[in-house]
Amino acid sequence: MNSVTYKNRTIEQGELKYTGKAKEVYTTNDPDILWIHYLDQATAKNGKEKEQIDGKGQLNSAISHLLFDYLTQQNIKNHYLLSISKTDELVQALEILPIEVVTRNYASGHFVSKFQVTPMKKLTPIVQEFYYKSDALDDPFINDSQILALGYAVADELIYLRQEAQQINQLLSHLFSTINIQLIDFKLEFGRTASGSIILADELSPDNMRLVDLTTGDSLDKDIFREHKGDMTVGYHEVLDRLSHVK
Amino acid sequence: MNSVTYKNRTIEQGELKYTGKAKEVYTTNDPDILWIHYLDQATAKNGKEKEQIDGKGQLNSAISHLLFDYLTQQNIKNHYLLSISKTDELVQALEILPIEVVTRNYASGHFVSKFQVTPMKKLTPIVQEFYYKSDALDDPFINDSQILALGYAVADELIYLRQEAQQINQLLSHLFSTINIQLIDFKLEFGRTASGSIILADELSPDNMRLVDLTTGDSLDKDIFREHKGDMTVGYHEVLDRLSHVK
Ligand SMILES: Nc1ncnc2c1ncn2[C@@H]1O[C@H](COP(=O)(O)OP(=O)(O)OP(=O)(O)O)[C@@H](O)[C@H]1O
Ligand SMILES: Nc1ncnc2c1ncn2[C@@H]1O[C@H](COP(=O)(O)OP(=O)(O)OP(=O)(O)O)[C@@H](O)[C@H]1O
Ligand SMILES: [Mg+2]
Ligand SMILES: [Mg+2]
Repeated sequence: MNSVTYKNRTIEQGELKYTGKAKEVYTTNDPDILWIHYLDQATAKNGKEKEQIDGKGQLNSAISHLLFDYLTQQNIKNHYLLSISKTDELVQALEILPIEVVTRNYASGHFVSKFQVTPMKKLTPIVQEFYYKSDALDDPFINDSQILALGYAVADELIYLRQEAQQINQLLSHLFSTINIQLIDFKLEFGRTASGSIILADELSPDNMRLVDLTTGDSLDKDIFREHKGDMTVGYHEVLDRLSHVK
Repeated sequence: MNSVTYKNRTIEQGELKYTGKAKEVYTTNDPDILWIHYLDQATAKNGKEKEQIDGKGQLNSAISHLLFDYLTQQNIKNHYLLSISKTDELVQALEILPIEVVTRNYASGHFVSKFQVTPMKKLTPIVQEFYYKSDALDDPFINDSQILALGYAVADELIYLRQEAQQINQLLSHLFSTINIQLIDFKLEFGRTASGSIILADELSPDNMRLVDLTTGDSLDKDIFREHKGDMTVGYHEVLDRLSHVK
């Protein structure tokens, strides 16, 4: 059995609780702690396309670790507790809110096709979108009044999600700009702690954000996989490499 | 040439400016006035299904006239000027905002299938949705930040549209309740006057709202046509008949 020491206690990996598209989630002997294992797997079209990609788990785990560390330093409350190995980490067990929060600085992807706008058009003010996290419904786009009427969150939570996403956007945009990368858009998940506060969860990696090299315009994210444009890990390696050298 | 007297002036019907799914819009000799002609035509699926329905133009024109009169009495600013004939009316010429405003009191139609909720579930608070008015894009569902970033409206306008729709919902819900009809949901359009203020436009009829008999639960609106459930004009007649007898 796998175990690790965290705050002078032994945390033991328990049962597999959930197998996602990119990660496995395990319980531990502490009900407030989960053990996350990153998979060497990429999916597109909400899981309809799936492929084994050697080394992807390590890359996402390492990038996510660096980005959560950075946000922790910047006082953004989040679930990250400990890096266990190149693919595994401990996080705070949360009740994930059924709302995915998307932030867009520049038009890309779905947004471009939906509104027929110029790719990479700068969005002022930034666009924030909520999606209802439901595999059965295919994560539908949802607005505030729908969320409130359906009871998926309360008004104060939506205000908080928007504020938090906006601050995280400023911080990450700045960080990436220092390594010559543009943060186009990204998706966040949040969860509720046992004490009732809401904090940032899930992962922060090129699986969930669009990143473009500021000089070449090259895509350094999952679009390489979505658009069948070659080895996606090349871009992920580049992102990790540059992030590792931020002083 | 058709003409009518309005405020001691002769208003002449001019060129056909636009042929919509339910109405024809003509210019007049006054650039601030349009001449609307209601068609005997029903469409569904954004125009993909189309049918000639005798008498429908007269019914919608009469219902819309009564509802605009009622809202005018209740101090809701709107474009309605004069009823010319059973199918024709004069309205203030506006620059229509590219935002359709949908209000939902109970779950129905698209909302039920999108979120798999119980039909007729009471929505608290009410749901308000914006759609971007674009035939080419198929009127996509849009949120505030998208509207602002794409420049389709400004923040104050969105606040105003929401407030106005909410007030109109209260007024129409009340009016319909007095004639044993439940207002399920409805779509509004607004336009900008030459002086820059925004007022209610388009039509108020069972083409653009869902109405249900409070006793029988029978549908009295376009759903009869959408769902191929018989003669839609029966319900429209019923609505007109009851509205005509409001004291
Ligand atoms: N701190 C946390 N506590 C509980 N669950 C978490 C936490 N962080 C992330 N999760 C959840 O763990 C799962 C991670 O797996 P993965 O990202 O592979 O899922 P996914 O395929 O994207 O599926 P989903 O649609 O559920 O997000 C997600 O369901 C995510 O919401
Ligand atoms: N006061 C007004 N000034 C200018 N245009 C108006 C006014 N009131 C309504 N309109 C416009 O006139 C047209 C009415 O025709 P109709 O309702 O048949 O159109 P439609 O098929 O629904 O098409 P659309 O998608 O343009 O609304 C609509 O385009 C509507 O926006
Ligand atoms: Mg995920
Ligand atoms: Mg219309």
